Amino acid sequence: MFEKNLKIGYLLDFYGSLLSEKKRTVLDRYYNDDLSLSEIAEELGISRQGVRELIKHSEEELFFYEENLRLAEKAGKTREASETLLSLLKEQGASKEILAATQQLLSTVNG
Amino acid sequence: MFEKNLKIGYLLDFYGSLLSEKKRTVLDRYYNDDLSLSEIAEELGISRQGVRELIKHSEEELFFYEENLRLAEKAGKTREASETLLSLLKEQGASKEILAATQQLLSTVNG
Repeated sequence: MFEKNLKIGYLLDFYGSLLSEKKRTVLDRYYNDDLSLSEIAEELGISRQGVRELIKHSEEELFFYEENLRLAEKAGKTREASETLLSLLKEQGASKEILAATQQLLSTVNG
Repeated sequence: MFEKNLKIGYLLDFYGSLLSEKKRTVLDRYYNDDLSLSEIAEELGISRQGVRELIKHSEEELFFYEENLRLAEKAGKTREASETLLSLLKEQGASKEILAATQQLLSTVNG
């Protein structure tokens, strides 16, 4: 059985630009547009088994990037740490300059 | 003429883990340990021309990653934005909790 891994759509946001166009398209159609293997096969003019293999290899590539760079994991932790800091700043009435500098830092980090 | 690109050592810090061991070793010996092409060739038991090509392909790989992920560029901007925020926080006498939350955020981002 071939199961959808919900983490893939998320990893695609981080590393999609590193994949070949064909791999990116297949994952995008499968995970974001929710097409079936058969529908993708028809669209790309390859076999259903070909689509399945392409998805498998593309997923392995995404996992390799995340294992080595951990951008997705880091983004989750950064979001938490940002929220903690922002709520403290608001609670303690930080100045406009500090709030602006914090927003500047966060938009650089997330940009 | 084959010139050293000083940016490579920096990119290697970000993307070295994505390179094959051989490519990483060659770039490390050339850029960080400052060995000559001939010395690396001897060490790895390949031709000087082989080393040159390996360096060229490894550099292209690093540039491809930076072009698509921009981690090195982002790290520079993050460092500047962090320094601005930290000096404002100190200047305006921010609380210990806020300083700690800021350090937590920065260590997540840079970790």
